[in-house]
Amino acid sequence: MLLLAALMAPSLLVSLYYAEGDTLPFVYAMLLALAAGLPMALLSKPASVDMNAREGFASVGLAWLMLSMFGALPFWFSGAMPYYWDALFECVSGLTTTGASILPQVENLPHGILFWRSFTHWVGGMGVLVLTMAVMPKVSGRNSFLARAESPGPSYSKLLPRMADTSRILYIIYFVMTLVLIALLLLTGMPLFDTLIHAMGTAGTGGFSSRNLSVGAYNNPWAEMIIMVFMFLFGTNFLIYFRLLRGEGLKALKNDELKAYYLLALGAIVLIALQILPKYGNVFSALRYASFQVGSIMSTTGYATADFDLWPAFSRILLLMLMLIGASAGSTAGGIKVVRMVLLGKMTWREVLHTINPRSVKVVKLDGKSVPEDTLGQVGIFAFVYFSFLMLGTLLASLDGHDFLSCFSAAASCLSNIGPGLSLVGPVGNFSVFSPAVKLFLTLLMLLGRLEFFPILVLFHPAIWRSGRR
Amino acid sequence: MLLLAALMAPSLLVSLYYAEGDTLPFVYAMLLALAAGLPMALLSKPASVDMNAREGFASVGLAWLMLSMFGALPFWFSGAMPYYWDALFECVSGLTTTGASILPQVENLPHGILFWRSFTHWVGGMGVLVLTMAVMPKVSGRNSFLARAESPGPSYSKLLPRMADTSRILYIIYFVMTLVLIALLLLTGMPLFDTLIHAMGTAGTGGFSSRNLSVGAYNNPWAEMIIMVFMFLFGTNFLIYFRLLRGEGLKALKNDELKAYYLLALGAIVLIALQILPKYGNVFSALRYASFQVGSIMSTTGYATADFDLWPAFSRILLLMLMLIGASAGSTAGGIKVVRMVLLGKMTWREVLHTINPRSVKVVKLDGKSVPEDTLGQVGIFAFVYFSFLMLGTLLASLDGHDFLSCFSAAASCLSNIGPGLSLVGPVGNFSVFSPAVKLFLTLLMLLGRLEFFPILVLFHPAIWRSGRR
Repeated sequence: MLLLAALMAPSLLVSLYYAEGDTLPFVYAMLLALAAGLPMALLSKPASVDMNAREGFASVGLAWLMLSMFGALPFWFSGAMPYYWDALFECVSGLTTTGASILPQVENLPHGILFWRSFTHWVGGMGVLVLTMAVMPKVSGRNSFLARAESPGPSYSKLLPRMADTSRILYIIYFVMTLVLIALLLLTGMPLFDTLIHAMGTAGTGGFSSRNLSVGAYNNPWAEMIIMVFMFLFGTNFLIYFRLLRGEGLKALKNDELKAYYLLALGAIVLIALQILPKYGNVFSALRYASFQVGSIMSTTGYATADFDLWPAFSRILLLMLMLIGASAGSTAGGIKVVRMVLLGKMTWREVLHTINPRSVKVVKLDGKSVPEDTLGQVGIFAFVYFSFLMLGTLLASLDGHDFLSCFSAAASCLSNIGPGLSLVGPVGNFSVFSPAVKLFLTLLMLLGRLEFFPILVLFHPAIWRSGRR
Repeated sequence: MLLLAALMAPSLLVSLYYAEGDTLPFVYAMLLALAAGLPMALLSKPASVDMNAREGFASVGLAWLMLSMFGALPFWFSGAMPYYWDALFECVSGLTTTGASILPQVENLPHGILFWRSFTHWVGGMGVLVLTMAVMPKVSGRNSFLARAESPGPSYSKLLPRMADTSRILYIIYFVMTLVLIALLLLTGMPLFDTLIHAMGTAGTGGFSSRNLSVGAYNNPWAEMIIMVFMFLFGTNFLIYFRLLRGEGLKALKNDELKAYYLLALGAIVLIALQILPKYGNVFSALRYASFQVGSIMSTTGYATADFDLWPAFSRILLLMLMLIGASAGSTAGGIKVVRMVLLGKMTWREVLHTINPRSVKVVKLDGKSVPEDTLGQVGIFAFVYFSFLMLGTLLASLDGHDFLSCFSAAASCLSNIGPGLSLVGPVGNFSVFSPAVKLFLTLLMLLGRLEFFPILVLFHPAIWRSGRR
């Protein structure tokens, strides 16, 4: 809560600079966050700063719920969203780096509010609690469970022996990459404010824009290309950058997930470019729009340079399938993650072998190393939980009577933290078509997807609420 | 092949009785099947009649491909379907008990052809190779792999020590239940021929009808109710009937899958009846149509008494979700199967516990007995393979440019062996809207779904084609 109040400071400054009446909402929200946080900080005296798994996962789940509830206040207080559930949807959409909006148009919003919307992408991408550990080493100790609960992917590698050092090095890489992106975008002639918005949206693979037509509004091929490349880069496992920095060179790039991620993207770009070629007339335009959209969807950013909902059925459904997969573990992206798909593919092939010869015992290997059986089991369960919530979300969204594609793509988009879907929630549509109850459930889907289910699911187990350690 | 020729005999007799010009097509098809089968039967001298896993699974995959190719011949020769791929689609739809048709209307078909269409449901439901074992005990030996590859569900219980005895007792239960159904339907005043068609379609949970409007054409509430009850019964694990016959009484009904199956059905019926109540005006009509449709979809039969594609969105999507789940293992139904959903749910809850306390080691129990870890792993992989083919099928079906709901429900309907889907392939639509290439892929999906993937997937492994035993 204290960090949240501090995180609102930059938006407060922006609102003071532009003086569009959104300053007081930030002041009130910060005061409320402090009022909620200070007593907790002063009164709680944990017996130990180290957390066990139960405490780590429950803390992440509860912290994200509180961050969402208080982070939504500026949107509500400023009148930008008259209903609290809309403000909550928008804030969770920001923090989870989804980028889905209930606003039919954003260009009339005060700059402070626009900045806060996109700033939540930036902190939500790498993780708010990972940030806490990076800036407050005293709290962190060896809290690997906290980081594991908040980070996407089947396993969280400690790059350095101390968790706080790992968090710090990740945030430094993240910060420097964001700065490079800002510098490059400024060179293309994009205004400073818009550059900041889109750099934060790209880094967090979020997708909120300051323009109704998203990145397409600028019709700036250089900016599009830079954002496209950086969407792919922010959808790549940060471990690879760390190993490159350590001077491992080409060895760092020998990574099964990396290969699958870029091959899948390349295949999708070629197929879509071929299908939209007649629409855009020449190969360069087709490749321009196809590569931007594939990068945007796979990295789960959600920016658009074209209304891909008007593309032919196969291209749209291919994008929809890519929404489910997402990008790499250990990046800021959402979705099932490419590495899980690679493992599931290998597990399926192993099962074929096992069917042929029931006595065959084969380990599944990733990057040349064998993967433990319980990790494989967890990957299987993760895929099942993902599809279950996808189906449940589609079913509940259909209560509003909208078409199947709108419901399915809305659920997929929220669960994979993308932003736009297809049909009613396509790149020129928005989530205001849904009733408050459906919007609340989609809000939950965004949180479930971002935290990869378990930090939220554990809150439904009674053991979490029993006092004392076991 | 020899058995296939024999199985065509009843249809030949029907065609002789009605004399509508479809007699010669059956004669030619039988001769071709004999010509293909006799040399194989006479020339092959297997070293042993016992099969190992590799031989069992590959035999089932190859046998079903051959049965489909030759079983399609009467449709093609009779001119009922001018293109061979359409005849193949229809025959696979019959054998896999799907009931999806490429025919816009069926009432003008010769009776022999109609009978053959529905007869394939009846033999395909319990399994063609299981039938082989039941009638030719000499071939069967201890070939549990054959039965395991052809039977739906995560495990195949040998009820009796000898495989051939198990097959025989299953077929006897199946045959007697079909006879009871025929007798009851005749009592409602349904004509004999129509009774046979719908009894075979219900027993195999297939869904082919002799009427364009399916069971709804008769507007016979008693027949509807009888068919509804029997659809549920044929979607129940036959092991339970066997145990009831053995006099186990209530103990036989203490079954986790049975409980989940009927609770799920009851919940769906109540929800749908509530939503369609305004459309039908009174509670009885709403319950009549809701229970028939839920029974039809969950048992993966696919008969219709109402155009459920006109029902409100939530009811339609709920039916679509039930299509994925299907009914019980060890029945004639398709889909993921209720028991797998029960196990996946328990595995997810175990993972929640494991997240809270990483040292906790808990077994997953079914009917009070712990389930081996590799069975659980196989269930996880099965769900993944199911969803992968569902998504791939949806994607490829979209090549024809049809709407998402048509593509998704067509893929789901074929994969779960149901028959109708929604939108273009809804209860009053049919699969003729798709191009030949898409129809061929949907044909493959039906086979993959019926045989639960692995007997077909193993054919893609080179080890299957190497000669000699390992």
